[in-house]
Amino acid sequence: MKVQGQAWRTVWLNPDHSVGVIDQRFLPHELKTACLREVADVEQAIREMWIRGAPLIGVVAAYGMAVAMRQDSSDAGLFSAKKTLLATRPTAVNLRWALSRMLTGLLPLPREQRADAAYALAAQMADEDVAINQQLGQHGLALIRTLAQQRPGQRINILTHCNAGWLATVDWGTATSPIYQAFNEGIDVHVWVDETRPRNQGASLTAWELGQHGVPHTLIVDNAGGHLMQHGLVDMCIVGTDRVTARGDVCNKIGTYLKALAAFDNQVPFYVAMPSSTLDLTVHDGLREIPIENREGEEISHLSGWHADGYLSTVRICPSNTATSTNPGFDVTPARLVTALITERGLCAAHPQAIQAMFASVG
Amino acid sequence: MKVQGQAWRTVWLNPDHSVGVIDQRFLPHELKTACLREVADVEQAIREMWIRGAPLIGVVAAYGMAVAMRQDSSDAGLFSAKKTLLATRPTAVNLRWALSRMLTGLLPLPREQRADAAYALAAQMADEDVAINQQLGQHGLALIRTLAQQRPGQRINILTHCNAGWLATVDWGTATSPIYQAFNEGIDVHVWVDETRPRNQGASLTAWELGQHGVPHTLIVDNAGGHLMQHGLVDMCIVGTDRVTARGDVCNKIGTYLKALAAFDNQVPFYVAMPSSTLDLTVHDGLREIPIENREGEEISHLSGWHADGYLSTVRICPSNTATSTNPGFDVTPARLVTALITERGLCAAHPQAIQAMFASVG
Repeated sequence: MKVQGQAWRTVWLNPDHSVGVIDQRFLPHELKTACLREVADVEQAIREMWIRGAPLIGVVAAYGMAVAMRQDSSDAGLFSAKKTLLATRPTAVNLRWALSRMLTGLLPLPREQRADAAYALAAQMADEDVAINQQLGQHGLALIRTLAQQRPGQRINILTHCNAGWLATVDWGTATSPIYQAFNEGIDVHVWVDETRPRNQGASLTAWELGQHGVPHTLIVDNAGGHLMQHGLVDMCIVGTDRVTARGDVCNKIGTYLKALAAFDNQVPFYVAMPSSTLDLTVHDGLREIPIENREGEEISHLSGWHADGYLSTVRICPSNTATSTNPGFDVTPARLVTALITERGLCAAHPQAIQAMFASVG
Repeated sequence: MKVQGQAWRTVWLNPDHSVGVIDQRFLPHELKTACLREVADVEQAIREMWIRGAPLIGVVAAYGMAVAMRQDSSDAGLFSAKKTLLATRPTAVNLRWALSRMLTGLLPLPREQRADAAYALAAQMADEDVAINQQLGQHGLALIRTLAQQRPGQRINILTHCNAGWLATVDWGTATSPIYQAFNEGIDVHVWVDETRPRNQGASLTAWELGQHGVPHTLIVDNAGGHLMQHGLVDMCIVGTDRVTARGDVCNKIGTYLKALAAFDNQVPFYVAMPSSTLDLTVHDGLREIPIENREGEEISHLSGWHADGYLSTVRICPSNTATSTNPGFDVTPARLVTALITERGLCAAHPQAIQAMFASVG
């Protein structure tokens, strides 16, 4: 998508075979890029969240394997790089998947071919991510287009939560892909951006990327969405997901469930953008079976932002001795609240039979 | 309630007839008090939100009339003080009510009796607020006590939103009154404190006052409550309210509706603590009839907190050009989601007939 009028991806290959990424730690306040030359650089970039988002982590890790092959293309080098990169964010499913795919592709090759093959495979994985998101977006675009045709002359208001944007992928994003495509097509869309406490990815990432691309949007607090839906100010919700179960339960950033409840209560369609890689057919009851990460309490008690004098500053917003030990990173939205899953294969009901029919080949 | 082990109120009379208040602008980081000597001081304290909360505003304004009577006890002085104080927060119903009551009480009196009578009437209004909240809390306490008896040895987890605490009243608070009384009685209560974006009254005020009184509590983000309810970690919700309609719709701080939806979806009782002064029998459909204040976007884009180096600092958390123009201060929870209203007269169903039967005399 566009940044300052130019098309960007979140990750790219430099002429010297180093890997370029947007260093997202400084967004939305500063646009910085980083150049990853060695596997240790890639390790640091993933571990310290210079880049984040499951699809992007997978692709950057794949490039990390390529960089590693230029350093040491032996079997030992291959296994060592995989181990190092896998340990950066041990819970990310895409990371494990991407590294396994690299290992499987490279191990049979002679050492001298591994580096070139690794770059080619990483590039392919990046392009696949773009294609999947683009395709998923086409199916979502059809929903927005229909709405726009039903309401000529009216702006289409779409609410999203957290950042399932292009910054979490290589390009397009998942939840944002239909929105970018509708905007690019000239449909009058406007996005309600949930700030998404505690990490504020809506305020810092989604608002930034929509603004850079020129998509009209308004940042709101997480508390406001229900009120907006009650007053007819939301035409549809589109959110991303970290995991969808075989019966259609949706695990996503904490607070998604509350918005799904409000959407259901106000007959607002609630869509979940889901690349098929996010489907986990081994899990059925999301509420009982998906373990939810409890994150550091400092995310609640402390906030970072940009001081008027031009520097990043961190402040505490509660008493110094207040307990903030309960900080679930995700919640589970039951399938009954989900209007449909938007996937690269088309729309899919959040229902076991529909999911089975469309994705039997994924399991 | 207690601060540093000592019993406090939010407003008190000093021996020199000046009015003492907690200057809440510096909470939770610093406990400062202010001494209001002239009507202009009271005006500033209300206007600039040194004190806030509808019941407290009313009582402080009443004391403002008393202070004014020491300056000028003529009819002109009386009307002028009322006008000045009424203009501080023009939308607060309690403010108008308190000032009218003072005027009605003082105008018939000879000038030389007005100052003494004003202090006496303001003190009476303060004591009435305490008594109402204490009484309301007794009825809420009965609910908590029943729950505790049903679950011997188990901690009772209560979720609250915003600050309907003693800092918003003279003492006890509304939503917090049952909690303080349960705690004082030795019941093992624990409070989930919603931080309550955008103004963070949960983080800055509710967490502070519960902590000072010693009530176990955990600060959570507004997004987390639904997840906690799904996992059986919330036994009841108690929130305050700014206005309840004749049919039981509840207007309260933005985000209350989302918590009520989650409570309903998980069979968690959702109680609204409502002094009868909050009832507005002239309004029926809260969603259509209650105008919702849209507040400044800076509340969303900027946040203040305590820097580690020991000073208050304000930071921006989104891009500098992001629209934050939609900032509704309140939302309306439909009566169907409310388990009961906790009032000083007892529990009342959020239902037109029940409200009519209990409060016919209020209208």
